[in-house]
Parts: sequence; C-alpha cells; structure tokens
Amino acid sequence: MIVCKFGGTSVANAEQIKKVANIVKSNPDRKIVAVSAPGKRYGDDIKVTDLLIDLADAALNNGDVTNKLQNVVNRYKEITDELGLDQTVCDVIAKDLQERVASDKSKQELFIDNIKASGEDNNAKLIAEYFNAIGLRAKYVSPKDRLVVNDLPERTMALPEAYDNLKDLGNGDEIVVFPGFFGYTREGILRTFDRGGSDITGSILAAAVKADLYENFTDVDCVFSANPKVVNDPVGISEITYREMRELSYSGFSVFHDEALMPVFKLGIPVTVKNTNNPSAPGTKILPVRQPNGRPVTGISADSGFSILYVSKYLMNREVGFGRKLLQIIEEEHISYDHTPSGLDDISVVIRSNQLTPAAEERILKRVKEELHADDVHFRHGFSMIVIVGEGMRNNTGLAARAASAISRTGANIEMINQGSSEVSLVFGVLQQSENQILRALYDEFFSLVSL
Amino acid sequence: MIVCKFGGTSVANAEQIKKVANIVKSNPDRKIVAVSAPGKRYGDDIKVTDLLIDLADAALNNGDVTNKLQNVVNRYKEITDELGLDQTVCDVIAKDLQERVASDKSKQELFIDNIKASGEDNNAKLIAEYFNAIGLRAKYVSPKDRLVVNDLPERTMALPEAYDNLKDLGNGDEIVVFPGFFGYTREGILRTFDRGGSDITGSILAAAVKADLYENFTDVDCVFSANPKVVNDPVGISEITYREMRELSYSGFSVFHDEALMPVFKLGIPVTVKNTNNPSAPGTKILPVRQPNGRPVTGISADSGFSILYVSKYLMNREVGFGRKLLQIIEEEHISYDHTPSGLDDISVVIRSNQLTPAAEERILKRVKEELHADDVHFRHGFSMIVIVGEGMRNNTGLAARAASAISRTGANIEMINQGSSEVSLVFGVLQQSENQILRALYDEFFSLVSL
Repeated sequence: MIVCKFGGTSVANAEQIKKVANIVKSNPDRKIVAVSAPGKRYGDDIKVTDLLIDLADAALNNGDVTNKLQNVVNRYKEITDELGLDQTVCDVIAKDLQERVASDKSKQELFIDNIKASGEDNNAKLIAEYFNAIGLRAKYVSPKDRLVVNDLPERTMALPEAYDNLKDLGNGDEIVVFPGFFGYTREGILRTFDRGGSDITGSILAAAVKADLYENFTDVDCVFSANPKVVNDPVGISEITYREMRELSYSGFSVFHDEALMPVFKLGIPVTVKNTNNPSAPGTKILPVRQPNGRPVTGISADSGFSILYVSKYLMNREVGFGRKLLQIIEEEHISYDHTPSGLDDISVVIRSNQLTPAAEERILKRVKEELHADDVHFRHGFSMIVIVGEGMRNNTGLAARAASAISRTGANIEMINQGSSEVSLVFGVLQQSENQILRALYDEFFSLVSL
Repeated sequence: MIVCKFGGTSVANAEQIKKVANIVKSNPDRKIVAVSAPGKRYGDDIKVTDLLIDLADAALNNGDVTNKLQNVVNRYKEITDELGLDQTVCDVIAKDLQERVASDKSKQELFIDNIKASGEDNNAKLIAEYFNAIGLRAKYVSPKDRLVVNDLPERTMALPEAYDNLKDLGNGDEIVVFPGFFGYTREGILRTFDRGGSDITGSILAAAVKADLYENFTDVDCVFSANPKVVNDPVGISEITYREMRELSYSGFSVFHDEALMPVFKLGIPVTVKNTNNPSAPGTKILPVRQPNGRPVTGISADSGFSILYVSKYLMNREVGFGRKLLQIIEEEHISYDHTPSGLDDISVVIRSNQLTPAAEERILKRVKEELHADDVHFRHGFSMIVIVGEGMRNNTGLAARAASAISRTGANIEMINQGSSEVSLVFGVLQQSENQILRALYDEFFSLVSL
C-alpha cells in the first residue's frame, strides 16, 4: 500500500487536482491520499490557509467576516466549477465555514486552529467528491476520533493511540482522502500541526498502515544537492538516507519540516519526493540506507541568522561544570543552541538569532559575568552556518581539507568549524555576507565534473 | 626587581649550583631566588623528591627508614662537599629529616607532603649557605607565616593574604633564597602544590613583589614550537603571548604547569624561560602582547589519551536542555570534559581517558540511555588532540585549510575539528597512532622554510 500526500501547489486549482487524480488512478496501490489546502496558483497568489488566517483575524476583531469568508468559498467554487462538480460541495464548505466562524472564541489559539484547518478539511471533501465523479471510488475520512493528538500547551503531536486508530485505514475498497495538517484531542478539540504539517499527517498515516511507500508529491522534480536559488542548476539527488535528509533539513532545504518524517523513519518506510507536474520523473528516494554513489557529499545547505556568544575565562578547563552552568543560564532563557565549540579557556555558543532579544542578551551577559566570573563575555551577530552532508564523508580523508580550501579560495574567513559528532555532516560558521559565495564554491568543489 | 626560579636540574649538583650563583651574581636585580629540590644529574638518576616519597612510604609502612633517609642526606652531602661547605648544613638537614619522619602520621597525605617538601626546603638552606660562602649575601626564607595556603580538602592554592605577607620580600640587602613547591596553612600545616609547583612559588613571589621580570631557569634554551622528541630540530620561540603559552600548555608542552603562571599573568609581569646551562641564550619571552613575527602559527602541541562519548538522538536539536543534561550526568561523575562538538542530532564529549573507569562508563551510558532516551550512546577510546596555536591565526584566511590539507596528506582521517571559540587555537582530534606523523606534517606545513 502507498500513502501519498499532495502539497498545496499540487491541489491549488482544478487543473492540478486533475493531475492528482491521474496519479492516484495510475497505481492501485495508492489507497490513501493526504491533501493540503489549495496553495498558490501563481507566484504572488494567496494560499487558502492565509485567506483563512485573515478570516479568523476578522472574526476575532470585528472585521469584515462576510467578505473574507466569501473569498475562501470562491476559491473552492472556482475549483468545483472547473472540475464540473455540482454546487453541493461548495454549500457544504460554506456552511462548515460559517459554523467554524460562529464557534467558541474563548481560546483564540484554538479558534484560529479550527478556521485554518478548514482549508485542508474542506479540500479533502472536495477532492473525494471529484474522485467519485470521475469513477474513482473514494471517501473523505475525518481525523476526528482517529488522528488523536495531545492537549495544550505542548506543541501538537500525535498520541500513540492515533496509530492504532488508523491502522485499518486503507483496508476498504475506496480510496481514502484524508485532510492534512490537523488532528483532534481526546476531547474532540481540533489542533493543527506546525506549518508544513500536511507532511506530518501523511507520515503518520503511512506509519499507521505500515505502508510500503510514502510518496510526497510537491512541485519539484527532486531534492537538489544545493539551493537552486543560489547555485546554478544543481544536480538532483536520486537517493538520500534519512540521516542525510535530516541534517540537510537543518537549513536551506525547506523540502521537509524536520519532524515530518519521524513516524516513517521509525519504521524504515521509504519515502519518495515526486513532482505532481512531472510524475514520470523518478524523484528523490529517502531511505534508511542507500547505495554508495561515488560522491562523498550528498548535499550542501546554508542558513543565515545565527549569533555567537563568546565566553572566556582563564583556567576554565579546570572548572568542572563551567560549560554545564553556562548552558543552564541559556536554557533558563528558554533558548536552544546549535553548537558549542570550545578552546582551552574559551567556549562559544551558537544560537539562532531570532531567539535573542536585547534584554535577553543583557541578562545572559550579566549572569555569565556575575555567576561564572568570566573574564570576557560578548555576543556577535550575523553568522551563517553551512552544512556539508553525506554518508560518504564518514571516512573520507581530506574532505575537511577540500572544504576548507574551497572556502578559503573565496577569501572568506572560517569563523567556526564543527566536525566530530555526526559522521555525516561538517558544519562551517561564516559571516552572513559570504554565505552564497561559499555555498557556490563548495558546490563547485564537490559536484563539478572535475572533482567527481 | 627580578624573581628567578631554578628548576630541579639547575640545582641537581654542585656544578649546577655554581652556575646558579654566577647567574644570580651577574645581575644585581636578581633579588629573589626560588629553588627546586635537587633533580636528576643524568638520564636515569633519581630525583631527591622521589627519594623522599620513597622515604615517606617506608616511614608509613615500617620500611627501612634509616637507609632511605641516609640516601637523601647523601645527596646533599655530596653537594656540600663539592661546594666546599662545612658539615653544619648537612647536620641541619639530617636533623630536619629525622624530625619530619618522626612527626604525626595520622593524616598520611599531610605527612607525605611534609617529607616531600623537605627537598626544596633543605636545598634552599644549602644554597643560601653557599651564596654567603662565596660572598653573595643571602638568606634562606621559610614560606611559614608568609606563603599562606588554603586548608584541605581543596587543591593547594595561595590565599590572597600570602601576597600581602610577601610583598616586601626583596626589600632587604640580602638575596632571598626561597624554597619552591609548598606553603603553610594559617594553622601552620605544610601543604605542597601540584607537581611542578616550584614554578607556582616563583610566580607567586614575582606577583607579590610586583617584579619587573620573572625568570624561569630550566635546562632548555627556549620553548620550542613543537615537541623536539617528535619533530626534528624544531625552531625555538623567542616571544610568545600568555594566551599562546596557555593554549600550548594544554598538551605536549610540559614547560609550565598550566596554573603556574596565573599570578604573574594577572599583573602582566613578563616571564622568560632561560637555560641555566646556557644563560647567554636569549630564551623565550612570555608577554601579554608580542610583536607580529610574520608567522600565523607559534606552536603546535599534541597529547594522547582522549576518549569520546558519542550520543545521538533524533530531533535532539529540538530539545532545549539536552546538552546541558548530558553534561550534568558527566559532571555528577566528577569528570571534566574538553570539547563538545555537535551535529544536528548528535553530540560528542571529548574526555581525558584517565578520568574514566569501566564502571563510570557503564553508569554514564545507562543514564544517558534511560534519562535522555538517546537512540545511540557509546564511548570510543584512543584519540589524540593536536592543537595549533598562534595569535596570527586570528584572521588568517585559509589556515584551517592548510592544516587540514597537511593532515590529509598523511592519509590520516580527521575525527574532530574544533575551531571557533579561541581566536588563537585550532584543535584536531585524530587517532592516537597518527599523532606523531600528523605533528610532523603540521610542523612542516607551518614552519618549513618553504611555507614562511
């Protein structure tokens, strides 16, 4: 059995939904289809999810609810018209939306979740209707009482019982169309996953039914070895391991939200990333293990927006507990960190800058000075992390040298190197302004024909 | 005023002590002389300190105290005879030793300290006697009531009041001969510093009198840029900063115990390392800041005996506090760590292997698995850390690339790289068996004429 998930652009309009139907029809193993809300049809289009957020905002703040609700319904109406479906679905959707807008607003967060999730929920109903209209026997299945999630205030996660509830999902004759992005608590309260959460839904369903394959349909032919917006025509990745994918998801590779694949990873279910607009392209396979391909590096990602906290204290290395106390101060500000390179009397903490505020920085500096008696402590901002990833790096003598040499040829200074824990990645910290230039230099080093 | 300290080989026999006298005489600023116990006179000689440990052991375990005590006295007797001093000093020394041997043995550690410290204490008495005999007015000064140290169980450290007690030490007409290696608590109990502790005594005296210079006399012409036992004829270092010296003391550079220079560092007092056997050689100057010398690297050190604890857990980077909790588990085993390189889902902890026992490893592995729910956790042993140090590295584009390339040319794999916190050092973790080969390759890269 195959679980396939179609992202927002794959279900953005009638033409796209027809492609989805053709894809589902072409392989009878595709029994479960998780769908997103209609996404962008063109570059500066507005996603249905964003229309819904706008609607929720209006409902909470006495805005123009009628018009904003109609904007949403119109998107579905345009699709049903072009698909030649009758008006019934749109009436169902409009009524559903009115009910949601009229629902309890005492917990704003849950109210917004409820409105947002209608994008996927109603699209699933529409797509099931269309499948049936073209003779593809299908049924919409609600996550309610099935995809059970935890309560507030924790981030939304499927509870173990969800997998049990869903395990027979694909056993009927009909194709199941299941809305992505949300579940319900045991008490029946709707909660959404983080953005990009339709990938999680598909992954949970694939794990629950122990699918042979989880197909993730999107709008690119494959996962690229480097960001195509920076590197000219980067090679596509045909096979990549879970670990490689995970390390690349760290930064710059926005294909998957980093938690999305966890349920399938745990069961070793293979994943393919495929293009709804070009389904014959082989796509990228994400596997527990893969065949060596002769390249040490599988992908290179880059992300900006990092700050570094520098702390130095003479004889720091003699003080048992210094590093732990430093990390505790940072933890007490609810800040997570990425790396902690250290010298003998120095330690640095690499932090995503969006977690810092001037006040938090000041508190941290004060505490490190006063409680840890540091000789020097200061923040620096504007760093990028560049991550080189590949299972082939494990014992590749000279790879760090090649990477560092490629960076130095750009004239940029390496501010931080982190190698030694993950066997499949090597991290360089550089100044943000050098990021793109370095990414290109590293791509050339490891992917140009000469260096193969 | 100059405080000079003479190490064990510099005061090992009459010939050496004559050199010391000549050095002291040649500059009237040399008002304070800290001395070690007589060290080795030749390769497989036994230091007086080791004879004393043997004596203490015999005294505690009903051994042959008489003979072992005589062995010690004989060393001093040989020196006094050759220096042409009369028998009085040796009688004083023998009586002193007998009293120490007969002293309270209820606290073994303190009893051993008391016996051991006699090596320096009696040598200082002998040298002061000799100075006077050749017309160099001198007096022995005891650390008692002056160099006040803390109580057990903390490691021996000078208390702030010691600096005040000692501040007028060089103000008299006579040269002060002061024994290294030990102080007394407020209650008058003798406690020794860690091994190599005569350097600390000299450093404390230099800081207390606010000396213009602290001269550390030993048996090498200078500090070398790499271990001469591994690298053939390494270049000597003429000037080095405190920070460089400190980073090099991490490993392989046994010139100074890493705490020894702290008192002078704090006051910015310059230090020179000079050779008692070749006092006209300029030696190595250790300074707060130094002139650039055109070389990015000042020295390369290497040390073996490291273990690495690897921990991996999917989505580790999402867990605020994971690293801190891991370090806490290690801290609760009273183990200090050197580095913590980290990937996205992995963190490693670099630990000196001598702190680990199979039982401690098992406890750590169990706790990390059970309390942190790690997917994988294991120890690996047999690593060396190689540290490249230089103030000139600060903004030296391409230095990491050169270093990594030099290592890769040996065919060795780089297991860990740590750069980014200290501006003056770069650490590579490698397998122990590659250490010497890599040290030579790095030396060639940064110090051979070609690469200058």
